[in-house]
Parts: sequence; structure tokens; C-alpha cells
Amino acid sequence: MLEAQTREQLRAVVSNWRRAGQKIALVPTMGNLHEGHLALVAAAREQADRIITSIYVNPAQFAEGEDFGRYPRTLEQDRQQLRAAHCDLLFTPSDQIIYPHGPGDSTSLRAAPSLANILEGASRPGHFDGVVTVVARLFNLASPDVAVFGEKDWQQLVVVRRMTEDLGYSLRIIPVATVRGPGGLALSSRNRYLDIAQQPAAEQLNAVLRWAAERVAAIPGQRAAIEREAHGRLERHGLRVDYVQVVRAEDLAEPEPRDRDLRVLAAVWSGTTRLIDNLPCHVA
Amino acid sequence: MLEAQTREQLRAVVSNWRRAGQKIALVPTMGNLHEGHLALVAAAREQADRIITSIYVNPAQFAEGEDFGRYPRTLEQDRQQLRAAHCDLLFTPSDQIIYPHGPGDSTSLRAAPSLANILEGASRPGHFDGVVTVVARLFNLASPDVAVFGEKDWQQLVVVRRMTEDLGYSLRIIPVATVRGPGGLALSSRNRYLDIAQQPAAEQLNAVLRWAAERVAAIPGQRAAIEREAHGRLERHGLRVDYVQVVRAEDLAEPEPRDRDLRVLAAVWSGTTRLIDNLPCHVA
Repeated sequence: MLEAQTREQLRAVVSNWRRAGQKIALVPTMGNLHEGHLALVAAAREQADRIITSIYVNPAQFAEGEDFGRYPRTLEQDRQQLRAAHCDLLFTPSDQIIYPHGPGDSTSLRAAPSLANILEGASRPGHFDGVVTVVARLFNLASPDVAVFGEKDWQQLVVVRRMTEDLGYSLRIIPVATVRGPGGLALSSRNRYLDIAQQPAAEQLNAVLRWAAERVAAIPGQRAAIEREAHGRLERHGLRVDYVQVVRAEDLAEPEPRDRDLRVLAAVWSGTTRLIDNLPCHVA
Repeated sequence: MLEAQTREQLRAVVSNWRRAGQKIALVPTMGNLHEGHLALVAAAREQADRIITSIYVNPAQFAEGEDFGRYPRTLEQDRQQLRAAHCDLLFTPSDQIIYPHGPGDSTSLRAAPSLANILEGASRPGHFDGVVTVVARLFNLASPDVAVFGEKDWQQLVVVRRMTEDLGYSLRIIPVATVRGPGGLALSSRNRYLDIAQQPAAEQLNAVLRWAAERVAAIPGQRAAIEREAHGRLERHGLRVDYVQVVRAEDLAEPEPRDRDLRVLAAVWSGTTRLIDNLPCHVA
């Protein structure tokens, strides 16, 4: 596996691959890799000849008071996993490479307001602006043919897809299904903040979403009541609910009666750990 | 000369050129072309095998109450001039092509604050955000090797150069010297708003900047006094001064004693017409 820290190193490798006519996939991550990330790499392998995985904990997508400082950084383990997964290039830029003039005075992106100011964006102001600000840089530096994003961060997927379309990047966004533990809990680097006693309640997040998704698929007209009931169930499991909401899958809009592809999304707190998950509801 | 209105049309041509190993230059314009624009095309010719000129009057870079509605649109004349100048492709996107989800709900860019909130940006809030928002789209759609910008819009040149660096585009920004009328007035589409009686005063803008640039080059320590005197001279010619300011050329910062490459920039109103100009001052 090759490694690059600088823009020039990355570009040199990418240029070689391009000249050889090879198709390139980008897998942007914040490191602390788990099976969910490895599923992204596996999906990338199906789409491209060469895989670039980036590891960068982007300060711009953490709001004030969030876990930027304690976000797990496990580069040596990540490197070994990526090598085993046959990743071709690991890109680990420093802040200076991503923000050459500092994050405070950089050219930044603002995500489409209708997508970015709701759900996660309402709780985490500026989060998606930070996401698209770094993703655009990675797109420009790696110039991939495809970029792979996990469905676990559904809203991020929608925001990035829109950014790609709005800004006219000629690359395809590949979504990859969420990988879950045996109890249904979506794999996440933040799961390590949970202690063993919090695990059963955390697993109820997925259980309640499964219930809600099935109910909405069967009786979409009862959406609001189902959201309220899901909210109550999550709270009865000791989870503090940030939101639990059914939206149109494609653009997170309020569903209309004719919409068939919906998505139920939720964010909850288990103690000091924030968990998110989402599931599709296909109305028959 | 080829023409493209859609993303697909543009990409098809660009892909062909790329496959043939040809180097591509982009000349972004708002149309109503004059000799200043043709100098950009001529500079592009020296740098690349193929020239794309875009004509798009970008609503996002006009502030409320500015001249977006009456900005001159002269497509047939522009087309003839570009044909005569051997431009290879004219790209004339509609709003729908640049902002597929409307300008109000699009993914947008925010220019680096230290560059974008001063001078023109102080008078025209959001102007440079609008500029980089459209320039990024043009960069992505045309994927040029070089992009050509006029020095007449010096601050825009600095903002776009920074955007290119910050976001990691691998293309070169080529600056082109300002083209002037016989009286020194920088060519601008907005000059047509001037009536014949306003012309002599408008020409004093350049004359006063020439004076100021020479003085600053000789006695840079007197910068503030020279700015004040230039301000007074412009007003005595009946021009309402928005700003006249000497900055570090590269990043528009306040000059330090060791700085050698300065630039004097000014914006004035002649009646209802806003004029800008700038000149280099090389301190010996």
C-alpha cells in the first residue's frame, strides 16, 4: 500500500494511475476503522481499479464542545486493516495540507440549506458545511471516478450527493449499506464511548427504527403518530431523543402521499454518547 | 467554434480534447465582450491547445440593488468576436445548468474572509462568495489546465487564486494585464453606463492611481497620506470615492515595511456608475 501525506505525493500517484487508464475510487474516512469502513473499501474495489482511502479528522465538521479532541485516532491499526483490505493508497493529510491558510481563513463550502439545516444539521450547526468543505478538497486532490459513502450517515450522503451535482463534479457517489453488530447497533467509532451497561439500550435504537420503518411502510398516513410512538419507546429505553423523523429518502423533504421511498432517521443520546441510525421504508 | 449549453455537451467536447492530450484553457466571462476579454482569450491561446470561453451573468455575485437586471447581454456580438479570436468552444449555461436546484438552495462557496470582506467585498456583501461559487462550478465542468482572469478585477484574481489553492484544484491561474482606452480608463462593460460628459472625470481614476502608485513606490512610508491625497483628488474630479487603498499585492493585507509588491486599488462612483481600477507599485 502506498502512502501520501502531501498534495504533491497524492497527485503524483493519481497522475500515474490516470495515465495508465485506471479508474479511481475514493473512500473518505476519519480513521478508527471498523467493519463499516472495510465495507466501503470492498464496495470501492468493485467500482474501480485503484482505491484511495483518506484518513483525516476534520476540525471544521465538529461543532464547539463536540468530541474533536477525544475522537479516536488509531493510525497504525487503520494502516494494517487497509493493507489487509488491499487499499492501494492511504492519504493522511495534516491540517496544513487541507487548510493551507488555516481553517479560520479558508475558502469554505456551504451545504444546500434545505438539506443541511435540519436533523443532524439542526443539532450540529455548521457540521455539513465542514463536511462538504473537506470533501470538495479531497475530490479535487484525488480526482476520483467514484467516491464511496456509508448509508449510516444518510444525511451526509444526501448532502454530498447534492454537492457533487450542484458543483458539477463528474464523479459518481456510491452508497454502502450500514454494517451492524449482532444486536443491530450500527458500527460507529463513537460506539467505543459506550460502556457495557449502555449497550442494550443503544441496541434499542435500531430495534425501534425497525419497528417504525415497518409501520410507516404499512400505514404511511400514520407517520406523525408513529414518530411520536417511536420517540416514547426510545425514551422508555433510557435514550434521550434528539430527533426521530420520517423523511423522503432522496432529499430529506417532508413526505408527500405519493412518495414511496422514505427513510426514518434518528439521533439519540446514551449518556454522553450521541448515536445516529436510519432505515429505509419502502411504501408499497 | 463549438458551442455548449449543457453540462453534457461541455463534458463531451472536453473529454475528446483530453483523450487527444490537449491542454485546455478556461476564460470565464459575463459576456458583453470588449478588448479586455479578447486579451484574456489571446493569453489563453499562449497557454493551451484549446480555449473555452464561458458567458454567464451570475446572479449570485450581484448584491441586492445592483445592476444584474440591466447588465448588458450581447450574445450575438460576443459570439462573432470569439469566433474571430479563434476561441474553440463557447459555453453559455442557463441558470438551471449552473444552479440545478436554484441559487437559493444550492451548495455554495464562501471566499476566504480575510480577502473577501474588504475593499470590493465591504461595499458588495457576498459578491466574492458568488464569484467563487460560480468559478468552482466552471472549473469542475470544464476541468481546465489553466484559467485566465483579468488584473482589472485584482481582488477577484486574489480571491480566485486562493480558492484554487485552498480547494486543491490542480490548475494554474493566469493573470492578464488590464486593457485601457486612450484616456487610461480601464475597459469594462460598465463603462457603457457613462455618458460622454462623464468620460473625462472617469479617466481621472486611472490618472490619480498612476500618481498614487508612483508616489507610494518612491516613499512607501507616506502611504496613508498618499491615500488621503488621492481620495481628495478623485473627489475634486467629481468622483464619489468608495475606497482608495494601498495593499500588499499578493494577499491584500496591510503592507509591512519589508513588502515590495504593493497594489493601489480604488472604486469610485461617477453618477450611478461604479468604476474600479488598480495599479502595481513596486517599491524599490
